[in-house]
Amino acid sequence: MSNNKENKKLVESITSRDVDFAQWYTDLCLKAELMDYSDAKGFIIYRPYGYALWEGIQDYLNKKFKETQHQNVYLPLLIPESLFQKEKDHIEGFAPETAMVTTTGLEDLAERLIIRPTSEILFAQHYAKIISSHRDLPKKYNQWCSVVRWEKTTRPFLRGKEFLWQEGHTVHSSEKEAREETLNMLEIYEKLGTDFLAIPFVTGRKTEKEKFAGAEETYSVEALMHDGKALQSGTSHYFGNGFAEAFNIKFQDKDNQLKYAFQTSWGVSTRLIGAIIMVHGDDEGLVLPPRVAPNQVVIVPIQGQKVEVQEASKKLYDELTKNGIRVLLDDTDRTPGWKFSEHEMKGVPVRIEVGPRDLANNEVTVFTRYNREKKQMNLDLVNNSMKDLLDEIHNRMLEKAQDHLKNNRHIAKTYDEFKSLLDKGGYVLMSVAGEEAEIRIKEETGATARVLPFDQTLITETCPVTNKKATQTILFARAY
Amino acid sequence: MSNNKENKKLVESITSRDVDFAQWYTDLCLKAELMDYSDAKGFIIYRPYGYALWEGIQDYLNKKFKETQHQNVYLPLLIPESLFQKEKDHIEGFAPETAMVTTTGLEDLAERLIIRPTSEILFAQHYAKIISSHRDLPKKYNQWCSVVRWEKTTRPFLRGKEFLWQEGHTVHSSEKEAREETLNMLEIYEKLGTDFLAIPFVTGRKTEKEKFAGAEETYSVEALMHDGKALQSGTSHYFGNGFAEAFNIKFQDKDNQLKYAFQTSWGVSTRLIGAIIMVHGDDEGLVLPPRVAPNQVVIVPIQGQKVEVQEASKKLYDELTKNGIRVLLDDTDRTPGWKFSEHEMKGVPVRIEVGPRDLANNEVTVFTRYNREKKQMNLDLVNNSMKDLLDEIHNRMLEKAQDHLKNNRHIAKTYDEFKSLLDKGGYVLMSVAGEEAEIRIKEETGATARVLPFDQTLITETCPVTNKKATQTILFARAY
Repeated sequence: MSNNKENKKLVESITSRDVDFAQWYTDLCLKAELMDYSDAKGFIIYRPYGYALWEGIQDYLNKKFKETQHQNVYLPLLIPESLFQKEKDHIEGFAPETAMVTTTGLEDLAERLIIRPTSEILFAQHYAKIISSHRDLPKKYNQWCSVVRWEKTTRPFLRGKEFLWQEGHTVHSSEKEAREETLNMLEIYEKLGTDFLAIPFVTGRKTEKEKFAGAEETYSVEALMHDGKALQSGTSHYFGNGFAEAFNIKFQDKDNQLKYAFQTSWGVSTRLIGAIIMVHGDDEGLVLPPRVAPNQVVIVPIQGQKVEVQEASKKLYDELTKNGIRVLLDDTDRTPGWKFSEHEMKGVPVRIEVGPRDLANNEVTVFTRYNREKKQMNLDLVNNSMKDLLDEIHNRMLEKAQDHLKNNRHIAKTYDEFKSLLDKGGYVLMSVAGEEAEIRIKEETGATARVLPFDQTLITETCPVTNKKATQTILFARAY
Repeated sequence: MSNNKENKKLVESITSRDVDFAQWYTDLCLKAELMDYSDAKGFIIYRPYGYALWEGIQDYLNKKFKETQHQNVYLPLLIPESLFQKEKDHIEGFAPETAMVTTTGLEDLAERLIIRPTSEILFAQHYAKIISSHRDLPKKYNQWCSVVRWEKTTRPFLRGKEFLWQEGHTVHSSEKEAREETLNMLEIYEKLGTDFLAIPFVTGRKTEKEKFAGAEETYSVEALMHDGKALQSGTSHYFGNGFAEAFNIKFQDKDNQLKYAFQTSWGVSTRLIGAIIMVHGDDEGLVLPPRVAPNQVVIVPIQGQKVEVQEASKKLYDELTKNGIRVLLDDTDRTPGWKFSEHEMKGVPVRIEVGPRDLANNEVTVFTRYNREKKQMNLDLVNNSMKDLLDEIHNRMLEKAQDHLKNNRHIAKTYDEFKSLLDKGGYVLMSVAGEEAEIRIKEETGATARVLPFDQTLITETCPVTNKKATQTILFARAY
């Protein structure tokens, strides 16, 4: 453990996770320099370290999207109000949250323009124009952009008036293909969790009450935070012909019949940064899974004025960099203790301390952030073993999150049992009679239906809340 | 030449470049599927092929920015009106073009919010908060985003109400370092032209009249279009202490004195797509420089139903892809003539025709888009020679553009000579007495001061326009 005095000083300034989780979260966002508040209330600044996490996610997903034949596009920021009102369910869902441009520096606009809260409508309008034959299908577009939703209460990354996201929008000639796309994208999100962010998502379908405005079906990936609350971390929607009918997206099929097309949309956002923080972080700050970490390794010279320390540090930096590892050589004039503390706050997965005493034995000290353990390592082995070490850290972090999930996923057969399990934190699975039960549960316990798991085996014949016949098995949790 | 009937049919539908350059440009933008118009007037849709050009530019610049220690960030879309008014010159320059959010779906806002037309103000406000010591400097941030400026007349990529760009904003502890940054970024833009887009930019400083609102000095890269008009393609600004004083960006220097910091900003936008089109395009459509081309090579099977054609095409596709070349195998059921025409319209640098007759001689036909020449090539040599061929195409396209620039860059010693040279198209260099002459020239000829070249040798002692003593040598042109 590296608790020298300087270290303590910095660390003391974030609230303990178990004392006040909400305050811990906000402290960490600011102290790890992930974000800052801006002058426009509810809008945040994504600082370099926070934005780099998003760039990592972008790189991962762009690769997966391109492998699965998706293409990136960019559609306008603003939507004429009249166009926005073309799909009834959709406008009802989003109208209260829209920000509207009504005037320029010189004159008022003839029609109000809505800043996109999501772009289904723009894509539908464009697709109607460019699709006429089965040869034009499928169309599988994705957009990276920011969207604006006028949320009343905001929290960094979790809920804000503006957030960054990707929104995929696809059109298909058959229901089957569109349904497959919906689930394939859900699977890509699930893999983003396990393979990249070390987060085991729970997946399933949303209830009628919780589904997206205008969708026939919504699927989601849900992550379990350290405090036992769930975070919806990505969604994938199947639209059927709904938008196609409203926007007249028709194609001439191989049989020469004119048919309505089938659509999907799916997205993840900078909310994922919140998930990374709240799944992995600890009282010392952020703990980054190595694959998304902007710096995977930080090298800290001890007695950095000594030539042998400088040379060994630089050599190690060059070797690791050449090996494809993202390394930071922190050779500023700050003290080692200050650096230890800063890079722990920032969650850098591995710290290598290069000091004269270790060097005399041809060794360095290697500190792993996730378990805060230190060990000596032969200098000649560091470079060759680093990729394995990073993989091991990823696996250990994923296992830890999986254990947390397993230990906090319960089954309830009575409503009392449900309430008491819920208060322990985590998910509770219960078979209920549908929306009536869902509403009562939300009102009485604050828990919401996270997903209908793909396995819909009934736990009880009767709904413990309404005493009616149970029809659905729902995973409930309190959520962000 | 590949002018079969089908080919002609498609090609006829774009206006000839020399008949009506403006119409040719618009036709090409639409037919090459680079963009489409949207329902919000003045806002365009960046279609996959157009957006891919922007992604190529992003990849090139992100690499250069990171090599030069810049970091990406994201700042809010909206700026409170009161904050926007903090820097006088800046607000005067942008106020008439701003779009303002005044209301949400539920209620009017207490303060109007401006959609960023550029983000100097947001960066300055943030920098004031996070900079306090010389240790915090330099800060070198870049942002990829869209901006909104309420332009009256719009043209695809060249001028729109919304465009995509990058905006770099940096803070330095010394004037020297900030001035160096301004010029270093100009040089990166210049290299983006020569090394990536095959566009030879002219560089220099903007006149007082043409410089950016709030800047001490503005530098720009200017490209010469096929029709002889110039296109400002990127700018780099030196701000001195101007914003630092308005926003109180101070740092404690090594000598313990509190000092104002020095700033720069610089940007290029999707306007560059317009430059690519208008520098390289021809009557058959787009001609893409190979390094930015989304598909560098397209393989078109001839008699694609034959197994040997399918196998040879697939093998070539695999080999070229493995070699790091971006290849499209067009094995759709459209006719070869249709495909030739489409990929010429889209400017794919190299087309490989794989047909049974050539294959019998172990050959394929290789068509290069920039000169529209065909030649036979031994099948075994294609893969190994492709990188060289793409480099050669890049070099030939750059040379052609350089020749065009050389042949359309004139020197004028009298105002009559200036006018007659200007009517030939291209740049005219003249030594003038300053702003008075600049204003008269603009009014009387429509030409504007593009740059003050770095070589300020006077051509004449007297300004031919005002008959006053000449003080500046300016490169003039009519411009987009």
